[in-house]
Amino acid sequence: VSARAGIVVTGTEVLTGVITDRNGPWLGGQLSAMGVEVAQISVVGDHPEDIRKALGWLRDEGVDLIVTSGGLGPTEDDLTVAVVAEFQGLELELDDALGKRVGKILDGVSKRWKGIDPEALERSRIKQSTIPAGAAILEPVGTAPGVVVDPLSGDGPTVVVLPGPPRELQPMWEAAVESGVFSGAIAGRVQRERRIVRMYGLPESEVAATIIAARDSGISVDELEITTCLRSGEVEIDTRFEPELTGVYDAFAEVVRERHGKQVFSEDGSTTDEIVARLLLERNMTVAVAESFTGGLMAARLTDMPGSSDTFAGGVVAYTADAKVSMVGVDRAVIEEHGVVSVEVAEALARGAAERFGAQAGIGLTGEAGPESASGRPVGTVCIAVVVNGVVSSSENTLRGQRADVRERGPVNAMHALRRALQSSA
Amino acid sequence: VSARAGIVVTGTEVLTGVITDRNGPWLGGQLSAMGVEVAQISVVGDHPEDIRKALGWLRDEGVDLIVTSGGLGPTEDDLTVAVVAEFQGLELELDDALGKRVGKILDGVSKRWKGIDPEALERSRIKQSTIPAGAAILEPVGTAPGVVVDPLSGDGPTVVVLPGPPRELQPMWEAAVESGVFSGAIAGRVQRERRIVRMYGLPESEVAATIIAARDSGISVDELEITTCLRSGEVEIDTRFEPELTGVYDAFAEVVRERHGKQVFSEDGSTTDEIVARLLLERNMTVAVAESFTGGLMAARLTDMPGSSDTFAGGVVAYTADAKVSMVGVDRAVIEEHGVVSVEVAEALARGAAERFGAQAGIGLTGEAGPESASGRPVGTVCIAVVVNGVVSSSENTLRGQRADVRERGPVNAMHALRRALQSSA
Repeated sequence: VSARAGIVVTGTEVLTGVITDRNGPWLGGQLSAMGVEVAQISVVGDHPEDIRKALGWLRDEGVDLIVTSGGLGPTEDDLTVAVVAEFQGLELELDDALGKRVGKILDGVSKRWKGIDPEALERSRIKQSTIPAGAAILEPVGTAPGVVVDPLSGDGPTVVVLPGPPRELQPMWEAAVESGVFSGAIAGRVQRERRIVRMYGLPESEVAATIIAARDSGISVDELEITTCLRSGEVEIDTRFEPELTGVYDAFAEVVRERHGKQVFSEDGSTTDEIVARLLLERNMTVAVAESFTGGLMAARLTDMPGSSDTFAGGVVAYTADAKVSMVGVDRAVIEEHGVVSVEVAEALARGAAERFGAQAGIGLTGEAGPESASGRPVGTVCIAVVVNGVVSSSENTLRGQRADVRERGPVNAMHALRRALQSSA
Repeated sequence: VSARAGIVVTGTEVLTGVITDRNGPWLGGQLSAMGVEVAQISVVGDHPEDIRKALGWLRDEGVDLIVTSGGLGPTEDDLTVAVVAEFQGLELELDDALGKRVGKILDGVSKRWKGIDPEALERSRIKQSTIPAGAAILEPVGTAPGVVVDPLSGDGPTVVVLPGPPRELQPMWEAAVESGVFSGAIAGRVQRERRIVRMYGLPESEVAATIIAARDSGISVDELEITTCLRSGEVEIDTRFEPELTGVYDAFAEVVRERHGKQVFSEDGSTTDEIVARLLLERNMTVAVAESFTGGLMAARLTDMPGSSDTFAGGVVAYTADAKVSMVGVDRAVIEEHGVVSVEVAEALARGAAERFGAQAGIGLTGEAGPESASGRPVGTVCIAVVVNGVVSSSENTLRGQRADVRERGPVNAMHALRRALQSSA
């Protein structure tokens, strides 16, 4: 059996919706990728009792490892280290050597900020260098060290205590994984296999039917752990299985291909964005964008990945008709004839973007995100055009949902339109 | 005492980091806003046993209400309704009238998608119309209805079962809140007060010191529930308290104002973006942006709020030096003399953006997001300029963190620079 883990995210601000937790899913992904099964992610407030209960539940569940995030800061509501020490039956001790290293970091902080209170800083230093006796230390990336703590009794889960800010948590997680205590905790792990099939352009119910069809044809799909997920128009089949069931998975994947070959765009884990970037690089092309209702989200998506300067030429956010004319070169007569939300304007935006930025590919998006319609077209109407080496394709669709959904979904549709255009331009 | 609630988010894809849950924090925010205390958010996989355990834990905790999200889809891993029925001691029944309404929705689906399997659709219809006997129905926004289910025994929490897609969950939550069953569950609630103070330009440790100073001066801060949170450079003090403690809060807030008056930018819950939008509207100004390393995120942020067409003139994503020259009118000599990542280029971008889009305010961002430096400047170097009615201000900073952090933090700093420039242009 696989090693099992639980994740405890602390923070009243997460529980009450002030911020959205990124650490739980990230840690879940890291653990899954190393073959550790994640039993649960618990989000609890900054109360010692709530943190203690969440840890206790996971211990009762028999997990091998608990990872916590948050509650290592300098304020009084940051209590995780003290709670974990008590949970593992250990005393808190000031670690002098660690205290010196934290002190050096805080010296840097006091140079960056003017007029900082030296007493407050010293209290932070003491608090952040006080750790459970015998814990393995994870050196601070910000100001707070993390710890990896085994139970004093030798019986129960190992607890990895990490800070809340993702840019601190992520490198410290790498350090935790390399610690001996960590390896000991998940020693019994099995590397489970995982395959992801991604599809675009079909409803989730079709996938349900396909799983049943595979079972009816004698494939032991129930031995596989299959989860399906619909997001922003993409349907994903995520399958985990013990290595000896690879043959069963292969037979299932064949049924998926037979029934949805046209919709499958990824079987190797690649995302849409990775596929589009690869296609652009292979063809030695760059892409430019002119967008309206997506307000920069299309460009932001095209520049999200490292190395995007090799594939992205530039973008214009042309909210107004004037900007579409002056900044992208759309013919005002086309706007007047067809309306600002029209495939004709989307095509002119795609062509104009490619031309103005000297790119071989262009994307044009115009639509009505709401909440009220300014263009006269119904909210959710989106027109998307793609041009690749002068060949234009375009479509008009009506997206459901609220402003944020429409703004998010436009770039998804445009990425797939670009992917298809690039694939057929080979 | 306040009513208490727990949230159970189901979905292996959330647990394994494939997608980030938005529903838990959203529901937490809704419950908090109505004065219901949130005990925990649990994220569990699509396994009946895991969902059952999470529900059981919350019942043992004595919560009045449990809200679940996800697991209402047509596939076999969608099990929430069946698990909740069993948990509440109720049989599952096909609701014929509901079945007809779901059938009509699915007719629409089959018209939108070509070649859909009618048997799969009928199975979806039956599955999604089979609900716990006597449950209150929440009409579908997508294809799946939700339910509100009291325990048969009359003893234990009411469970609200909602779908996973946020655009379905959010309107169905409104319907759930209006149901009689829901009101009964949280009848004992107390409307707790909540105040949020937002600050920019100080480290979190200063806030820790301020809380201690307030206590030392005799203010009963420990009777308030104070949480502090640092995100993207903004420090937030989020305080909840029973209405009779308003005087204690007011005294605490006065200490915060005395010590951090210059850094406090919001005391009424307004976000930075709301404040900037209000300032632009009051001054009858629009803003334009020319950005490089943020790749569209600055424009996306300025267009995120409804009504942004009144304040946003347009944007250019100028990744290359050529685009900065041709699309924004930056003088090539300035780039050659100072380098592409420089305050001089940021200022030229801000001025050029305002001019090209005919706006009174302009923002220019240039920087090095990494992972490798293309400009020769260290990764994390960002130059931000703001122009308001021809008056330019600019700054250079070094941001820590990874590519995504640098890309996200740039717009935060630029929004505050714009806020300050607008406030001093009054």
